[in-house]
Amino acid sequence: MTSESKPKRATIKDVAEHAGVSVSTVSYVLNDSGPVAPERRNRVLNAARVLQYSPNESARNLKRRTASRIGMVIPDLTNQFFAMIAEGVHQAASAHDVLVVLVVPGSAEQSEEEQTRLLRSQRVDGVVYLSSTGSMPAASYELARSGPVVLVDEQIPGVDLPAVVSDSRKGAREVAQHVIDNGHRRIAVIGGPESLWTAQQRLAGYREAFAGAGIDPDSVPVLVGDYRQDAGYELASRALAADIEPTALICANDLMAVGAMEYCRNSGRRMPNDVSIVGFDDLPLSSLLTPRLTSVRQPAHDMGYRATTVLFDLIENRTPAPMSLLPTTVQVRSSVCDINGA
Amino acid sequence: MTSESKPKRATIKDVAEHAGVSVSTVSYVLNDSGPVAPERRNRVLNAARVLQYSPNESARNLKRRTASRIGMVIPDLTNQFFAMIAEGVHQAASAHDVLVVLVVPGSAEQSEEEQTRLLRSQRVDGVVYLSSTGSMPAASYELARSGPVVLVDEQIPGVDLPAVVSDSRKGAREVAQHVIDNGHRRIAVIGGPESLWTAQQRLAGYREAFAGAGIDPDSVPVLVGDYRQDAGYELASRALAADIEPTALICANDLMAVGAMEYCRNSGRRMPNDVSIVGFDDLPLSSLLTPRLTSVRQPAHDMGYRATTVLFDLIENRTPAPMSLLPTTVQVRSSVCDINGA
Repeated sequence: MTSESKPKRATIKDVAEHAGVSVSTVSYVLNDSGPVAPERRNRVLNAARVLQYSPNESARNLKRRTASRIGMVIPDLTNQFFAMIAEGVHQAASAHDVLVVLVVPGSAEQSEEEQTRLLRSQRVDGVVYLSSTGSMPAASYELARSGPVVLVDEQIPGVDLPAVVSDSRKGAREVAQHVIDNGHRRIAVIGGPESLWTAQQRLAGYREAFAGAGIDPDSVPVLVGDYRQDAGYELASRALAADIEPTALICANDLMAVGAMEYCRNSGRRMPNDVSIVGFDDLPLSSLLTPRLTSVRQPAHDMGYRATTVLFDLIENRTPAPMSLLPTTVQVRSSVCDINGA
Repeated sequence: MTSESKPKRATIKDVAEHAGVSVSTVSYVLNDSGPVAPERRNRVLNAARVLQYSPNESARNLKRRTASRIGMVIPDLTNQFFAMIAEGVHQAASAHDVLVVLVVPGSAEQSEEEQTRLLRSQRVDGVVYLSSTGSMPAASYELARSGPVVLVDEQIPGVDLPAVVSDSRKGAREVAQHVIDNGHRRIAVIGGPESLWTAQQRLAGYREAFAGAGIDPDSVPVLVGDYRQDAGYELASRALAADIEPTALICANDLMAVGAMEYCRNSGRRMPNDVSIVGFDDLPLSSLLTPRLTSVRQPAHDMGYRATTVLFDLIENRTPAPMSLLPTTVQVRSSVCDINGA
């Protein structure tokens, strides 16, 4: 089906002629845009099958001046935060009758570089890109030369591409402030990968809260994880064995917080009485954990949707609306113990 | 980029000529398959950019006799069970250097029919299809005429397509048996959509266990949900208000079990003491809930991977290995209370 030297494609006229109906009737049937008697409908479908007719996407797109397919690079689908972003991208794309070509570097044996090159070979009209490394693979530059690229969730320093991101720093400052307000002073941070913008922003926000409360930011241990659940488990075991004996763990995403909670449970620590824990992202299941996890909500679906809207603006030569940081809000639940006066 | 009447594409020879290097050098650079000095490498990349050269996927595919892209229809990405299947599909595809075009009927405003038609217009070489309705939209038949379609997770009765599915009936029988073994006789089932094969199979399995234990299968109330969390919440409230006052809720998937657990918690019922609950799918977070949810594990990632392998067999005219039901295994945790002798 992808051969270069394929025979001339059947046109809608060929189908109409073969079926003995008008071109409009063919269009009605194939687009479900008008009533056609079952017998005539079947003749049209049969003719389309025999002639291997497929609606001419390129002609349609020229008429509509829109994309036919876009790429989406997303690190990991089993992280529900990324899945929600992906759903937002898909929803915006399908509202434009555009399909999404999916690339998930985290689930493939190939490198992000190889996958991006593959994506480029598919001649997509643009890409929504969620970096899992904080840097652009060389192939992405090629990608950006052949069509617009919009970053989502993660900015990439030094790369001049539009980015739809949320206000991680503010959300992080506020959730750290919540921990401090509950009397915690011996705190450890389980941070994200140092190369990632979100991890940098969250760490910056935590440190602003520490500084504002008179805690030397450099005195707070930061253990660096990879945003996965296993890292949270492992780093919680290290953090809680540290000399300062933290009463609270601030985790830079919910998956690591879930891992940390699992470690606490397995090691016989009560939450939140022995250890308070907060996360970031507010995954759908976080509110169902015991204790219910206090976290920072980001508008994940909206981030994906907006990034895709910006991408279509660029593909269609419109000027996108100015970017602003999307809001983050602390969801206070029951995973932080009030130890004031304790 | 998708215009029909585009100028002749640059070839690898054009790039070599423009950069003043050999064709092999261009190939080394673009495929990372050999060492090239940085200066020559830059010349090649620059020439490729200027000439808008993109590796000729069709020629490559003719040589390799493989697909260039496949479609994947998946109902909902935020259900982690589906996300794991999607990752399996993606992993198998990328191992073949093949990209995945994603269609998520549940996250789009368009119907499954419209989206399938759109997918067809993209001339994918085959499709892995996870039905959310239990029937094939008309457009899918068109799809199946133009390239192989492999079903995953859900079989579709009356449709002669290969399907990679797990042994839902056996898993369901075993988890219901576990509930019965713990002394429960007043049981309600929160089932999946009646049109779906998985829901039918699970209900059949539950009823085999009931019958085997001397419980009239027709005496057990079955409340039908849509496999989403909200349905579990709502149906748990109805099931627990029923005359039989169930001591156990058997839920046909984990998301509905999570919703049921939320209802129980909100209505002040202790789990598992007041209400025992089991699920199906064994989502990664199910083991972290309180109580830890007893569920039936299906090899989700493997199902996606295998379905894609079968698809490539069909695309490449090989005979796929005979299908067999993939195994399901009950994961016994702490959400079922032993009321024997109570």
